[in-house]
Amino acid sequence: MTASKPRVAIIMGSRSDWPVMKKAAEALDGLGVTYEARVVSAHRTPERMVAFAKSAKTEGFQVIIAGAGGAAHLPGMTASLTPLPVLGVPVPVRDGLKGLDSLLSIVQMPGGVPVGTLAVGEAGAKNAGLLAAQILALSDPELAIRVEALRQAQTDGVPDSVED
Amino acid sequence: MTASKPRVAIIMGSRSDWPVMKKAAEALDGLGVTYEARVVSAHRTPERMVAFAKSAKTEGFQVIIAGAGGAAHLPGMTASLTPLPVLGVPVPVRDGLKGLDSLLSIVQMPGGVPVGTLAVGEAGAKNAGLLAAQILALSDPELAIRVEALRQAQTDGVPDSVED
Amino acid sequence: MTASKPRVAIIMGSRSDWPVMKKAAEALDGLGVTYEARVVSAHRTPERMVAFAKSAKTEGFQVIIAGAGGAAHLPGMTASLTPLPVLGVPVPVRDGLKGLDSLLSIVQMPGGVPVGTLAVGEAGAKNAGLLAAQILALSDPELAIRVEALRQAQTDGVPDSVED
Amino acid sequence: MTASKPRVAIIMGSRSDWPVMKKAAEALDGLGVTYEARVVSAHRTPERMVAFAKSAKTEGFQVIIAGAGGAAHLPGMTASLTPLPVLGVPVPVRDGLKGLDSLLSIVQMPGGVPVGTLAVGEAGAKNAGLLAAQILALSDPELAIRVEALRQAQTDGVPDSVED
Amino acid sequence: MTASKPRVAIIMGSRSDWPVMKKAAEALDGLGVTYEARVVSAHRTPERMVAFAKSAKTEGFQVIIAGAGGAAHLPGMTASLTPLPVLGVPVPVRDGLKGLDSLLSIVQMPGGVPVGTLAVGEAGAKNAGLLAAQILALSDPELAIRVEALRQAQTDGVPDSVED
Amino acid sequence: MTASKPRVAIIMGSRSDWPVMKKAAEALDGLGVTYEARVVSAHRTPERMVAFAKSAKTEGFQVIIAGAGGAAHLPGMTASLTPLPVLGVPVPVRDGLKGLDSLLSIVQMPGGVPVGTLAVGEAGAKNAGLLAAQILALSDPELAIRVEALRQAQTDGVPDSVED
Amino acid sequence: MTASKPRVAIIMGSRSDWPVMKKAAEALDGLGVTYEARVVSAHRTPERMVAFAKSAKTEGFQVIIAGAGGAAHLPGMTASLTPLPVLGVPVPVRDGLKGLDSLLSIVQMPGGVPVGTLAVGEAGAKNAGLLAAQILALSDPELAIRVEALRQAQTDGVPDSVED
Amino acid sequence: MTASKPRVAIIMGSRSDWPVMKKAAEALDGLGVTYEARVVSAHRTPERMVAFAKSAKTEGFQVIIAGAGGAAHLPGMTASLTPLPVLGVPVPVRDGLKGLDSLLSIVQMPGGVPVGTLAVGEAGAKNAGLLAAQILALSDPELAIRVEALRQAQTDGVPDSVED
Repeated sequence: MTASKPRVAIIMGSRSDWPVMKKAAEALDGLGVTYEARVVSAHRTPERMVAFAKSAKTEGFQVIIAGAGGAAHLPGMTASLTPLPVLGVPVPVRDGLKGLDSLLSIVQMPGGVPVGTLAVGEAGAKNAGLLAAQILALSDPELAIRVEALRQAQTDGVPDSVED
Repeated sequence: MTASKPRVAIIMGSRSDWPVMKKAAEALDGLGVTYEARVVSAHRTPERMVAFAKSAKTEGFQVIIAGAGGAAHLPGMTASLTPLPVLGVPVPVRDGLKGLDSLLSIVQMPGGVPVGTLAVGEAGAKNAGLLAAQILALSDPELAIRVEALRQAQTDGVPDSVED
Repeated sequence: MTASKPRVAIIMGSRSDWPVMKKAAEALDGLGVTYEARVVSAHRTPERMVAFAKSAKTEGFQVIIAGAGGAAHLPGMTASLTPLPVLGVPVPVRDGLKGLDSLLSIVQMPGGVPVGTLAVGEAGAKNAGLLAAQILALSDPELAIRVEALRQAQTDGVPDSVED
Repeated sequence: MTASKPRVAIIMGSRSDWPVMKKAAEALDGLGVTYEARVVSAHRTPERMVAFAKSAKTEGFQVIIAGAGGAAHLPGMTASLTPLPVLGVPVPVRDGLKGLDSLLSIVQMPGGVPVGTLAVGEAGAKNAGLLAAQILALSDPELAIRVEALRQAQTDGVPDSVED
Repeated sequence: MTASKPRVAIIMGSRSDWPVMKKAAEALDGLGVTYEARVVSAHRTPERMVAFAKSAKTEGFQVIIAGAGGAAHLPGMTASLTPLPVLGVPVPVRDGLKGLDSLLSIVQMPGGVPVGTLAVGEAGAKNAGLLAAQILALSDPELAIRVEALRQAQTDGVPDSVED
Repeated sequence: MTASKPRVAIIMGSRSDWPVMKKAAEALDGLGVTYEARVVSAHRTPERMVAFAKSAKTEGFQVIIAGAGGAAHLPGMTASLTPLPVLGVPVPVRDGLKGLDSLLSIVQMPGGVPVGTLAVGEAGAKNAGLLAAQILALSDPELAIRVEALRQAQTDGVPDSVED
Repeated sequence: MTASKPRVAIIMGSRSDWPVMKKAAEALDGLGVTYEARVVSAHRTPERMVAFAKSAKTEGFQVIIAGAGGAAHLPGMTASLTPLPVLGVPVPVRDGLKGLDSLLSIVQMPGGVPVGTLAVGEAGAKNAGLLAAQILALSDPELAIRVEALRQAQTDGVPDSVED
Repeated sequence: MTASKPRVAIIMGSRSDWPVMKKAAEALDGLGVTYEARVVSAHRTPERMVAFAKSAKTEGFQVIIAGAGGAAHLPGMTASLTPLPVLGVPVPVRDGLKGLDSLLSIVQMPGGVPVGTLAVGEAGAKNAGLLAAQILALSDPELAIRVEALRQAQTDGVPDSVED
């Protein structure tokens, strides 16, 4: 969690989602984007979720990243309660169906309430952080420079040879 | 919809779910169980949903039947906001994945907030009505008699021969 | 298993299902709902199953929780033989298809014979216990108070922060 | 249905399965194997099913072909109640999941109670008839000749050219 | 297509995707967001795609919406070539696997190159338009007002009754 | 492998299938049915397979059990070359899709060439042995008695209590 | 079918596959590659298949395109009997599982016997023709020129605008 | 990697794919086919990919083997940029959907741009090497002899007995 005013909210249904969702936090840290991470359960704390989502814009958040597993309702319900862009991360859970249930529960939203959905698991969490930064960079030229630098570094870091 | 005080609420995310969900209503009608059917969208009217779910018990409802398609959040979110039993019906939708998305979005609820899920489509809607009646019959001996009579009639009505 | 007269029957196809199904028992224990757990195999003891299901109501049971894996027929067959509400729990098994086979075998019941189906595995078993309690609470005000207290405790127990 | 004593029983959960299941009957007719076709619903007439399955051997049946859709329990339950070989045909149903649910409900039987499962739909029904004949042909040399002749005719009937 | 300078690019792999993708255009039109729609095929015109994606930012686009079917590579490849946010829409195609292939091809991007993925088909296309508007509204207060008004109208437009 | 003349052939695509397929052998051993187990690969030894299948009947085999994984062609190809009943066992393999690929490759045979398919993995292999015995028992009264005794023992062996 | 000596064999399990498989023929016609199309059923004419596959190389064929549906064994079995490259086309069939069964039956070949698999249906058939031509073009410079010209024409033929 | 001029390029999206993809290299080594293995990421190094694919033919490569996981775009994008035959290998990845996502992303190419797709994982990688050799053998009689010898050795190496 960053000291300055957070621009991105990272919410998740359970502490057990944090090992996956912290990849989003790390991506934002790497780009100098402030964020706040909270546990907000759609099912166990629905009113906390409603309160959070309804006030998220006035609290100053600009993008919301929501991760959840199984019948994952947190991203879509948050999206229904805020005009801010919501990015969803399907978290694979024990006894879940390898994340296919989480993925379909997040991505198949009806017309009118979008959730920009990322890949299942850690890659998706990292990418949610990066996409949030890309969105914020549209009106933050310095962040845009950092995003492009990260992309370049990522490209440069791909080795040509298959072994050391 | 029945004139007397409704014991069962049938809610659905959209009017387009009604052709499926009315099978639940017909099942309740057939057993003389009062109900009320309403459109309550988790995504388009989240606050109406919260208000409905929180007051459902004090309004006098005893069982809630909730049908939805795609990333179907209505049954689970309603269940998170009421101590009443909630029965979920996956509705297959155009461009949905044959109802598999609806089914997984409804049934894979995390520990703590159950939704009793029925089959995809009309058979599931009918069965939601019947299961609601079976639940109410636990404390309504006359309804219990009607439920058992329906079961018997159903059994009697199965022909032995494969053709007329 | 509880000493007083059991209100809920927890049945399962095999002793190997017990590590999953005992989550249902624990949920009922936590709410003070009496139950009895038995092994009843649809396939290996079909007549024991028929006898159990046909007498369950007169034995005094009010709700039946049935867990099974693979081609899981126990919940649906029990439901066909009793007017009591039956809740089904898909148990993932070795060499099964991650529980998808169990889930579809339980939930896709034809119109006329409902099984209220819960999530695959331990979360589903726990929720079957909770849903049984919610059903019984409709006519048991003291249980209703305990159910609502549990819900409140569950809500209160969700931490806000993602780490200790 | 054939006039002489039937050797094969073709059972199905509903009259609506007959358009698919009659392919089994036609295959048996073509090979001169007597059969009887009946509606026996696992879910709507469970006791008729138990009675049928328990007496099938003493009634003189040698092979049972059972077709069902959705949460298809008829083949497996019949198999649990008879020592006769049971062949299962997954029938695709409206609002079912393209027959995948029927297939998994029939084929994924636990160790101890086998169902020889055929393909989803008409091809499977036809093949159930043929497999029943192949089984009976083991102790019926004249039928064995007819089975081999049919196979040969089938082979001979495959055109070489892709168009007329 | 709008006369003023386009802020959103809507690209698709084939003209046959337009009946689906025009829902994105209609959503943008409804919110007064300028856009340009082009056919850019990842597979048949890979260099046009590279040229488009590399110049999209300097051309003045701020968000890219990319729709494709089957092995849908257009959204991900475009995302690899631009720092702009890319939103992906899985288009169901004939002989495709109901859009599941398109969905997985778009959403399962590796860490480092995000695509914010929407639902399969028309609902997803509409939502891509809305999400693009929500993103642009972060730095366009007038658009933000229109987005919130649309949301309110959408909420107000949900009927309570299930029939007219 | 049994000393006396084998009635059942157990074939499999690879030695690595034996740990699964030996459950079929054990089931036959338990019922005193003679068998022979061989490696016959449809893909690596297609002509050995053709020779085996064409001569299986004259060699005296009565039932063939074939197990294979991935794109499992051994059961179906064997069935195409013999009038004997063929039972197929889907073997789950590393990097296979949890046996779903094996299952569909075996069960979805076209009309004209049946394979009686059992469950994925060890349960299916055991059941293939049992089904072979049930088939042979149709003309072997002593085996029929042993089959029924095994069934009875299986039923008797199911404990009532969920724990020791 | 072309008059001159055919370089490519297009085989399929049934005449009913021809409407799909003729897309391969049309692709070869368009590039001036000679071919011959035949019905060869793995299941109904296994020996014709063996004879064909074993002699294909000496008959002068250089590439084999094999299409089949359901439990599609023709491509893999042909590949097991020839050192020629074999390309497989999954054909969707009625009551098949949308071609997923065909796809997995063709692509999931064990190590040692490859089948280069194309997409389900007409796109896959067309691409099988094109890939065969690309393979032959490696040692046929004039064909290579035609392949590259086709590619260029294909690229040039993609319109920029979404509507006429 | 071989010292002499490489005929086959083995490319993969990440070094982490090498443990799978080296099975292709080993297959080529075993047949004396020269190759070069490189990391080329469609998403992280799209321009390196374009440059590689466009120059692959003039560099002297004759066949390209491309492996990738998740939303696997490398095989299809490479195929869109070269007239050489491209063989695709789906690599299963952590948090991927068991390789089903990779498989569908590679195989479901639209008409016009073929990728010959092999099985998921190591078997597929090995087979990609073998299929490349079979393709090259069409114009390399000595390689053809080695391919046929390998096939024969493979056939000879299949044991008859199920145990040592």
